[in-house]
Amino acid sequence: MTHPSAPALRPDRTVAELKELRTLTGTPDGAQRVAFTPTWAAARQWFRDKLAALPVEVHQDAGGNLWATLRGVSDRELLIGGHLDSVPNGGWLDGCLNVVAGLEVLRRLAAAGSPPPVTIRLVDWADEEGARFGRSLFGSSAASGALVPADVRDLTDRDGVRLADAVRNYGIDVERATDARAELAKAAAYLELHIEQGPVLEGLGLPMGVVLGTFGVERHAVTFTGQAAHSGSTPMAVRKDALAGVSKLHLAIRDIAARHGGVCTVGRVTTEPGIVTAVVGQAKMTLDQRHLDPAALAAMYADARSAGERFAAEEKIEVAWDKLWQIQPFPFHPTLIDLADAAVREVCGTSHRLPSGPLHDAAEVCRAGVPTVMLFVQSLRGISHNKIEDTREDHLQLSVRALDRLADKAIAWVAAGG
Amino acid sequence: MTHPSAPALRPDRTVAELKELRTLTGTPDGAQRVAFTPTWAAARQWFRDKLAALPVEVHQDAGGNLWATLRGVSDRELLIGGHLDSVPNGGWLDGCLNVVAGLEVLRRLAAAGSPPPVTIRLVDWADEEGARFGRSLFGSSAASGALVPADVRDLTDRDGVRLADAVRNYGIDVERATDARAELAKAAAYLELHIEQGPVLEGLGLPMGVVLGTFGVERHAVTFTGQAAHSGSTPMAVRKDALAGVSKLHLAIRDIAARHGGVCTVGRVTTEPGIVTAVVGQAKMTLDQRHLDPAALAAMYADARSAGERFAAEEKIEVAWDKLWQIQPFPFHPTLIDLADAAVREVCGTSHRLPSGPLHDAAEVCRAGVPTVMLFVQSLRGISHNKIEDTREDHLQLSVRALDRLADKAIAWVAAGG
Repeated sequence: MTHPSAPALRPDRTVAELKELRTLTGTPDGAQRVAFTPTWAAARQWFRDKLAALPVEVHQDAGGNLWATLRGVSDRELLIGGHLDSVPNGGWLDGCLNVVAGLEVLRRLAAAGSPPPVTIRLVDWADEEGARFGRSLFGSSAASGALVPADVRDLTDRDGVRLADAVRNYGIDVERATDARAELAKAAAYLELHIEQGPVLEGLGLPMGVVLGTFGVERHAVTFTGQAAHSGSTPMAVRKDALAGVSKLHLAIRDIAARHGGVCTVGRVTTEPGIVTAVVGQAKMTLDQRHLDPAALAAMYADARSAGERFAAEEKIEVAWDKLWQIQPFPFHPTLIDLADAAVREVCGTSHRLPSGPLHDAAEVCRAGVPTVMLFVQSLRGISHNKIEDTREDHLQLSVRALDRLADKAIAWVAAGG
Repeated sequence: MTHPSAPALRPDRTVAELKELRTLTGTPDGAQRVAFTPTWAAARQWFRDKLAALPVEVHQDAGGNLWATLRGVSDRELLIGGHLDSVPNGGWLDGCLNVVAGLEVLRRLAAAGSPPPVTIRLVDWADEEGARFGRSLFGSSAASGALVPADVRDLTDRDGVRLADAVRNYGIDVERATDARAELAKAAAYLELHIEQGPVLEGLGLPMGVVLGTFGVERHAVTFTGQAAHSGSTPMAVRKDALAGVSKLHLAIRDIAARHGGVCTVGRVTTEPGIVTAVVGQAKMTLDQRHLDPAALAAMYADARSAGERFAAEEKIEVAWDKLWQIQPFPFHPTLIDLADAAVREVCGTSHRLPSGPLHDAAEVCRAGVPTVMLFVQSLRGISHNKIEDTREDHLQLSVRALDRLADKAIAWVAAGG
């Protein structure tokens, strides 16, 4: 609790500043703060202008992340992070709520009159979305050391521009990006506030929740191969219908998800020859499987593989799996989860613990070994990455208060050696 | 049985002439006799040159069909038909086997020394395949009267050429195409030999079969609409997965086909937004259903509709049906089926009766009320519309003999007032 005479937190200012940013960097189609573009740079300049009024040191690291540091009594650090970048035609809150709310917390702490017990750092991660080059978590994975320059330097955008060339215009040498690891050397805790981007809190009628960690992901392309044949002249009994593998596996992964308590999604199906008068000779599907528990994630994947084999045998077709992407689950820190839960209860009266299906920069910070937790605020209709993404303004204000409470609790925990 | 001194049928000549035509009108990619193109015209000229040696009258009708008429004692007519046109990169037999085998039968009849009891006419239908403008059975539907000029005149090929303009170069006024109905005024029976284009006869180890009729077709596009959602943040229980409608309906139509003894095919599936990280918001599928019996076809369609409604309700999604195409079944003439069966048994020792899944010009002649039957000869691997389409040469020769036997039987039947 802040002293009655201390400067007050102004959650209404956060909402006003989010609208200011929306006006500055949005169009009628939504937010346009795609990383490594002039609009993103304008958002960052707007952020730097806000920071200029505070007694903080500001610099951009080797991975393109922008840091504002408020020196404390101890050089052990509490980090608060978010990302100003958005997808094209994105929402007004995804990523920047975290940054702008963190700015308000920083203001409150900076105005307290005396240095905080530990050093406070607000970070705007570079290119969380990966919207232009397809590589998300660019800046935070540079800081965690997980980024491999050779894997990303030659990625190109739709105009053929290389990632290495695009980031150079924003002061980043991709070959040296992981020098950003130095930024996490003294980090003792990391906090991130984010819109949920899902329907769970709205479904429960709760403004906020505490995130248990980020799901691990197994992402594969599955190809079934049968035999194309004339739809009129080929009796059912002799067909080798590749689509049957997809239909059966799609229905099976829903049971697999339910059995293990994770989520499994078939997002795309394609058919060859793909004409109305031919039995499908080859059918492809994507499979995205997510779980917070590594063993359960592995079991979901194994169950899907064996189901695919079984269906291929039943249908006399063949099946092949190609890995598209994979990441381990990142469970957050138990003590920080408890502190976050207490902060949400103080502000909202009740809390709820839930995993995060989407990835966040918090996963990379967690990977680097920094105790991490996230707060979720309710998303209306569970929709994000779209101009209609929205959250009630009273909920936004509650989320600023909850982040502020959590910051105080985390400062005390870090100061006590946590 | 022909008299020992009568001129002999030469089925080996038919095979040799089919190879001649392949050399003249094919490329390494297959047959290129697409209707209303110079290569098709070259095939027709080759055919006219063959006919020139016979005592037949040759003319092209208002629908673009080419007729060769051998006058008989009676002006009641036995028709034998086929089509020289092919799909692009097509096979060497589809359509032209019928014409070239019919030519051999005509030669045998013309050389008999006296006019046949009834008039014999060999017809090369125009544009059976519809490969260029998407309208199959052009010439035969002009002759049946089913062609509607307003529906086809503005069809365009991939270069934007209108059908009406393309056919004018080949002497056809599309507005008067159905004047070709006059050609069928005295038709008493129609015979067509064709490769099976399916795997049934090969599977049974039989060279030939008798066709019971052409399947009726119900062809629809089915659209399921749910709600796109993030694959990570949306719990399974709250999803509205449009793809579930497709997967369930695809598996259900296989049972529906088996229950009614028809064929049902899902040939194409598309997904929106169609990305690996999103639950499918809208899924579309094509459904092609075929049966020889109109009531069974209607029941298969009704069953699919009600299954679609049930699955939409189960999945809390919506379903919409759009008719793509529809044609009634055309059962062939029972007496001609019996005659065809006898002819096949005489030549091959054994016969088999089967429906035709693909459509043929015979369906249009049948629609016009002319007693009709078809013979099928085995297709290797059941493949057609492809350069690897093939039939054993001994089977091709058997098929010429069977058509010849059937012609004699049908002449006797027509002469007797059938």
